[in-house]
Amino acid sequence: MKTLTEDILYRVIKKRAKDSHKGTYGRVLIIGGTAQFGGAVIMNALAAVNSGAGLVTVATDPSNFTALHSHLPEAMVVDFNEDLTEYIKKSDVVLIGSGLGDRIDLVQHTFYAILPRQILIVDGSALTLVAEHKLKWPKSRLVLTPHQMEWQRLSGVTINEQAFEAFNMLAQQRMNVEPILVLKQHHTQIYTNDCAFEIPVGGPYQATGGMGDTLAGMIAGFTAQFMLSFSEAILAAVYAHSAIADELAETRYITLPTEISASIPEFMHRYSR
Amino acid sequence: MKTLTEDILYRVIKKRAKDSHKGTYGRVLIIGGTAQFGGAVIMNALAAVNSGAGLVTVATDPSNFTALHSHLPEAMVVDFNEDLTEYIKKSDVVLIGSGLGDRIDLVQHTFYAILPRQILIVDGSALTLVAEHKLKWPKSRLVLTPHQMEWQRLSGVTINEQAFEAFNMLAQQRMNVEPILVLKQHHTQIYTNDCAFEIPVGGPYQATGGMGDTLAGMIAGFTAQFMLSFSEAILAAVYAHSAIADELAETRYITLPTEISASIPEFMHRYSR
Amino acid sequence: MKTLTEDILYRVIKKRAKDSHKGTYGRVLIIGGTAQFGGAVIMNALAAVNSGAGLVTVATDPSNFTALHSHLPEAMVVDFNEDLTEYIKKSDVVLIGSGLGDRIDLVQHTFYAILPRQILIVDGSALTLVAEHKLKWPKSRLVLTPHQMEWQRLSGVTINEQAFEAFNMLAQQRMNVEPILVLKQHHTQIYTNDCAFEIPVGGPYQATGGMGDTLAGMIAGFTAQFMLSFSEAILAAVYAHSAIADELAETRYITLPTEISASIPEFMHRYSR
Amino acid sequence: MKTLTEDILYRVIKKRAKDSHKGTYGRVLIIGGTAQFGGAVIMNALAAVNSGAGLVTVATDPSNFTALHSHLPEAMVVDFNEDLTEYIKKSDVVLIGSGLGDRIDLVQHTFYAILPRQILIVDGSALTLVAEHKLKWPKSRLVLTPHQMEWQRLSGVTINEQAFEAFNMLAQQRMNVEPILVLKQHHTQIYTNDCAFEIPVGGPYQATGGMGDTLAGMIAGFTAQFMLSFSEAILAAVYAHSAIADELAETRYITLPTEISASIPEFMHRYSR
Repeated sequence: MKTLTEDILYRVIKKRAKDSHKGTYGRVLIIGGTAQFGGAVIMNALAAVNSGAGLVTVATDPSNFTALHSHLPEAMVVDFNEDLTEYIKKSDVVLIGSGLGDRIDLVQHTFYAILPRQILIVDGSALTLVAEHKLKWPKSRLVLTPHQMEWQRLSGVTINEQAFEAFNMLAQQRMNVEPILVLKQHHTQIYTNDCAFEIPVGGPYQATGGMGDTLAGMIAGFTAQFMLSFSEAILAAVYAHSAIADELAETRYITLPTEISASIPEFMHRYSR
Repeated sequence: MKTLTEDILYRVIKKRAKDSHKGTYGRVLIIGGTAQFGGAVIMNALAAVNSGAGLVTVATDPSNFTALHSHLPEAMVVDFNEDLTEYIKKSDVVLIGSGLGDRIDLVQHTFYAILPRQILIVDGSALTLVAEHKLKWPKSRLVLTPHQMEWQRLSGVTINEQAFEAFNMLAQQRMNVEPILVLKQHHTQIYTNDCAFEIPVGGPYQATGGMGDTLAGMIAGFTAQFMLSFSEAILAAVYAHSAIADELAETRYITLPTEISASIPEFMHRYSR
Repeated sequence: MKTLTEDILYRVIKKRAKDSHKGTYGRVLIIGGTAQFGGAVIMNALAAVNSGAGLVTVATDPSNFTALHSHLPEAMVVDFNEDLTEYIKKSDVVLIGSGLGDRIDLVQHTFYAILPRQILIVDGSALTLVAEHKLKWPKSRLVLTPHQMEWQRLSGVTINEQAFEAFNMLAQQRMNVEPILVLKQHHTQIYTNDCAFEIPVGGPYQATGGMGDTLAGMIAGFTAQFMLSFSEAILAAVYAHSAIADELAETRYITLPTEISASIPEFMHRYSR
Repeated sequence: MKTLTEDILYRVIKKRAKDSHKGTYGRVLIIGGTAQFGGAVIMNALAAVNSGAGLVTVATDPSNFTALHSHLPEAMVVDFNEDLTEYIKKSDVVLIGSGLGDRIDLVQHTFYAILPRQILIVDGSALTLVAEHKLKWPKSRLVLTPHQMEWQRLSGVTINEQAFEAFNMLAQQRMNVEPILVLKQHHTQIYTNDCAFEIPVGGPYQATGGMGDTLAGMIAGFTAQFMLSFSEAILAAVYAHSAIADELAETRYITLPTEISASIPEFMHRYSR
């Protein structure tokens, strides 16, 4: 288990090329947010846009459109009951699962429509649905972001066993696609294809609803922009998420997800060269 | 009548344990907000989330979902016309009554479904409904947050008599459940099972609509997190609410409820050790 | 024509009494905002609440409820198509007309239901409707807030003639109720029963949509709180509105209505003794 | 190709005349925003209002009204499915096209109803629709704001050829109306009737969704106010938009459209004499 340092941020966050345009920074599609859990996709999208994704579209229950636009006119919306095939096809990154409730149909369709070259981040309820329905993982560039209970459901590795890196790595390798695994916990761990990392930052002021939705959105934003260094982009997103929380916690008892997102552009600026 | 000091904040607001997660800080269910009084539950929820509750769900009229999410994507929502039994069961703290209008059915159902180990905060319209319909109090860990007229309706103690601690304590003890009573007024009083307290902070800049909804939300947030010191958590919430107002009033003629909620994380940070 | 000085602020804005409560600071009812002009009542309400009114209810088209609550959970709402008689009766101040469109029925009903002891502020479209339909003014404590064209329609005094104080005063006295007239223009004039005043503050950075709605809301908030010095409260509101704009304009090319409202609590604090 | 300097800001942004009123600063009508792309008109309107337009009305899908008012109660709304003839007639500036989807009917109607003395800004989807349907340009004071691909579709000038000023100028002159062309790119170019300009400001931190909607809104706001120096107003708007981004980018990795709009009043203040 390697411990990451802030050097990952300097390596990943590049000064942008002068003649780049929004297409350069990726198209992100976020699928989630039933009427009851609409806040989840709002937090996904706030994180993705503030991280610098070029274009963000949110496929969600139509009852969430107005609240999303109240936060973020920068995002586009689509009813997630429509056929999303075209939306998935033209995306560079698809994030599915935050606040998705029991919408197994959306997980199945996304797994079916996604292409191998595309990045697919699976979060929250989608992870539980995959475990319950024993869905097969698609052959895309896959990122899973379970917390410890979700990982137990998915992999069979109990929370106690998760303390041992080898168990997690074995379970990850057994999935025929070998996803990058972001195992959320105090000092979150990331398992790439050949290596395990731990972040030394973050703390219990992050223990509040929506923190994971913000992390998933940041991973979407970072991988959309820094696609060529795919696994490093994930490492950087996870590191940045908790490092921002640490900074906010110097003056706050808890660090709200929306505040973390609002801090991203200034944080990233300090690491871009 | 003991006068509280800011020492109550140091005693209650603990530095969070490193390996805690959002479940550690409690599940809060807020029930209230008819279409006309939707602002009340928004202020409840802003206070509870900013106080550090782990997970907050708002059961309210569906017409309030969007405005709530515009303020606070961190909260989840449910239509309060659905069967709330399961939501009540999995909560640590239930707050009912802010902006509840005449929905006696929701009070009755909550009183029926709540368990003895659970914390139940009864505020606003729910208090008036209990008095009008002579409802029996449930056997949970009960907190009542009446202003002086609501307390008169509930207890029969007139506003004049309320100046005498003994009358209030007697009325409180006569309720077979002996709730903790937060009697809102200039220098709010709190009656626990065996003692009466007064806060020396707060002032007339708080005399504005929604101030009580914010206090109720803070009590929910504090008791959800600091459950083991239940009555002290309430004392701390009441103290913090007015102490924040005092600070804001150094530069403001009135102190709006939403501004008080926004100030909670920085305020609590200063008292956590 | 007397020129007001900032002394009016010191005279009107009192330090609040310790044992006061929100009832002490008045109940304001705002009637306005068709679906197309919903922003007007939002700006009314932001101004009234930030000025310190005790309780604010907005009677408007239901399609405006969510946007209002997104700005201001502190306000209550009611569908203006319901019977408003009870709402009018229990108010201390009624403000009608901002963004009211062609809803003459609401003007007529309000004029019918209002009592002599109540304060009635008539603004915007309501003024035009009164002129068009030659409605009779009700016998309440009446405040009119026309801009120059609206005043011409109401009084027959042409904009050129309005430069002469005597014409305005005569027209005002001819209305059998002798309202207080706030004649909006560069250096707004106020005609009370026996005197004409001009404010020396304000400027063209205020020339932006919604500025008048904010002024009307401030007059509602000030008269609700400082009812005993009714005409002085109006003078203070008008003065404060433009004085705040002057301060903002030290760093801004234009001064948006919502920014003026946000500045009220800190502004009033500096004048309260 | 002339390179603009900040002198254009000093020349255009005038200190406002004392006796001016909101009518002096123009009526802007914004037409755009299907249910899916509602954010676009919100960003248009935020830019126009913050630039100082006197009165702004947004004709859009009704599902966007609430989110717009949550950002900006200062704007009025109208359903874009109603007959907009009267709205177009009483406007000084019409901006059509941001987030307009496939609503060719709205483009056709606007081109039909607009008068020669009126300013018409055509942006986003409207440009693509004009190209696809080979619509004839109306005889108004026309501004086009294509990015490079949209310009290729409209003019037949390929992106490679666009590097040569002469090609763009020839294509522009061939349109029988000779519009002012704002060709968005790294260092945006502006083609007036007789001259080509380039701005030396702006950078890749602007490469994010909604940036163009904000620029179109600023052009609307500037031309509405500074109508007499029509082409200079456009130059100033384009310059200001990127100069503000440059300032924000001193501390931010990306510069969000909504942040640019929020910075306009303070930015313009520094250049007004």
